[in-house]
Amino acid sequence: MVSDVPASVAGVFTTNRVKAAPVLVDRKRVRSGVSRGVIVNSGCANVSVGRRGLVDAEKMTASVESGLSLGKGEALVCSTGLIGGPLPIEKIEAAVPRLIKGLSPTGWHDAARAIMTTDSFPKLHRVKGRVGGKSVTLLGVAKGAGMICPEMATMLAFFMTDAAVPSKLLSKALLSSTEQSFNRISVDNGMSTNDTALIFANGMSGGRPVKSGTGDFKTFSKMLDEVSLELAHMMVRDGEGATKFIELDVRGAATAGEARTAARALAGSLLVKTAFFGSDPNWGRIMAALGSAGVRMREDKVDISFNGVRVARRGRGDAGNERKAARAIRKRDIVVTVNLNMGKGAYKLWTTDLSSDYVKLNSVYRS
Amino acid sequence: MVSDVPASVAGVFTTNRVKAAPVLVDRKRVRSGVSRGVIVNSGCANVSVGRRGLVDAEKMTASVESGLSLGKGEALVCSTGLIGGPLPIEKIEAAVPRLIKGLSPTGWHDAARAIMTTDSFPKLHRVKGRVGGKSVTLLGVAKGAGMICPEMATMLAFFMTDAAVPSKLLSKALLSSTEQSFNRISVDNGMSTNDTALIFANGMSGGRPVKSGTGDFKTFSKMLDEVSLELAHMMVRDGEGATKFIELDVRGAATAGEARTAARALAGSLLVKTAFFGSDPNWGRIMAALGSAGVRMREDKVDISFNGVRVARRGRGDAGNERKAARAIRKRDIVVTVNLNMGKGAYKLWTTDLSSDYVKLNSVYRS
Repeated sequence: MVSDVPASVAGVFTTNRVKAAPVLVDRKRVRSGVSRGVIVNSGCANVSVGRRGLVDAEKMTASVESGLSLGKGEALVCSTGLIGGPLPIEKIEAAVPRLIKGLSPTGWHDAARAIMTTDSFPKLHRVKGRVGGKSVTLLGVAKGAGMICPEMATMLAFFMTDAAVPSKLLSKALLSSTEQSFNRISVDNGMSTNDTALIFANGMSGGRPVKSGTGDFKTFSKMLDEVSLELAHMMVRDGEGATKFIELDVRGAATAGEARTAARALAGSLLVKTAFFGSDPNWGRIMAALGSAGVRMREDKVDISFNGVRVARRGRGDAGNERKAARAIRKRDIVVTVNLNMGKGAYKLWTTDLSSDYVKLNSVYRS
Repeated sequence: MVSDVPASVAGVFTTNRVKAAPVLVDRKRVRSGVSRGVIVNSGCANVSVGRRGLVDAEKMTASVESGLSLGKGEALVCSTGLIGGPLPIEKIEAAVPRLIKGLSPTGWHDAARAIMTTDSFPKLHRVKGRVGGKSVTLLGVAKGAGMICPEMATMLAFFMTDAAVPSKLLSKALLSSTEQSFNRISVDNGMSTNDTALIFANGMSGGRPVKSGTGDFKTFSKMLDEVSLELAHMMVRDGEGATKFIELDVRGAATAGEARTAARALAGSLLVKTAFFGSDPNWGRIMAALGSAGVRMREDKVDISFNGVRVARRGRGDAGNERKAARAIRKRDIVVTVNLNMGKGAYKLWTTDLSSDYVKLNSVYRS
């Protein structure tokens, strides 16, 4: 993915202490605030291979920089795939001339497809808006289906826009959008070593540069929120082995932080997730998971509903609703609302069920 | 399970904020330090059913107390099974006379079988030792196969001994043994609402009462350690859907607490556990899980081995050992040794792989 002119750039990266070599390279390079694009490979994560990882990551960027006559450090790099094996760097270097020849303003779908690993469909979303007095486009391309957990999901996401946005504001908008989207999805609670989101803004719309605190920034941020959330939801829908798309809506916690903790505990509970897979309205497992989450709660205050059908009221089963609940839970999209009735803390996140296919997929991933 | 004479008693209970009614009843009753026994049902956990739960739990103990002419409060009660449905208390009350008639000094195996839920085999272990100048027996009976996580596993465990041990010392020994056994096993990281371990010591061996700080207490504590660990290991071997018995041995952490955190992160990682199910020596997933555990570590210091076969040295794959590692990981019993090489913190825990059968079992549990 390449910008015709130097673009403002910003990135957010995995917080895993084990970081892939390309993450280390990019973290340094985005500090300049300017970049021309990014080369991405799937199949090998380029992590836990010692010093060779950094050498290979820099070779990847160098091959792009020389092929496109860019300055040193103007290209970024991302890898995704298996941890612990070396990149077949010669293959990548040999392919770069062909990749450069194939660059096209309409190639986004191919790019989205090329970065897939266990993804079953390419993920891209585009919005248009009016920023800086001009019509601008914001396009996002992402991959991610497994090793998905809050802070951030195992994923790569790339945003490109022709709006003119300084890198500091890009960074601010990206952090905020990430918090509302990629930091709120969970498939298997695995945190990857390679998570990266990058945004490039090259100003080619010809509009005025976006300034802090303006309507332009608000509009642009909303556009980025929309694209991020759309991509994040696509990742959950494509979650490895997933048969359900579950929104966990926790309300009434003592604080917003406790609402988040409770929502994450539910998203991390194998028993809750297997019950969803079995279309079993087993709210008892939700109670048990809430009770062990370490948040303030009282069993006799908890309300739980599935798609608006109340299954537990004040900590006890709502026997009258059992058939309606059984019907609600058979749907593919389920909103689970938990009200702790302790305070005003609220948090939403999106997750999947846990299916036999998830286990199959992840037990044979390498072979 | 009944003692012919009043016995010293001690218990440890779930730390889940949602507690089953029998847990609430027992917590209060063990404070007296004396009890005559416990009645246990499986199938229904008697939790999240409102005030009725407490009424039913007390009815269960009352039926035993009246049938055996015990004083009020001398019997304890445990339940295990589905959360959220009421106990069929009339059925239990109707069965008590038959249960009392069937009491037998050789009935332990039947008791171990009666308390099973998803367990595939009854769990009991017995040791003999010399305490207070007499030969004494310590017997443990337990159940537990799913909803197993550290602090404590979803389980019930009952220990009976004819040694004479005051309740304070019983409690001390039980806490210490629990920390070394039930608090160190994990199947699915679910914390139950019903976890209970109870120990009864009735002194019928005729030996001297055990005193604090003596060789007797040491001997008795060791006996309890052995029985607890044996029962805990049985639970892991019987873990729902488990095809592997995995010892996670984390060493070289900055502190013992961080070693525990790291070990628990590995035991909680779906990706690590599915790799074991697939007999895939995928140490990269172990690295990623360690990196996100929140403990001090440096990728280039980590050593990992499977059954003594080193697969990663200083953060990099040991290519020469790949075939040996693939052989090692196909075994049923696997010791995973992780050395962070940061300090002297060490911790061991035992866990299972995550199999398709776990998912199947837990998605259809109710139907």
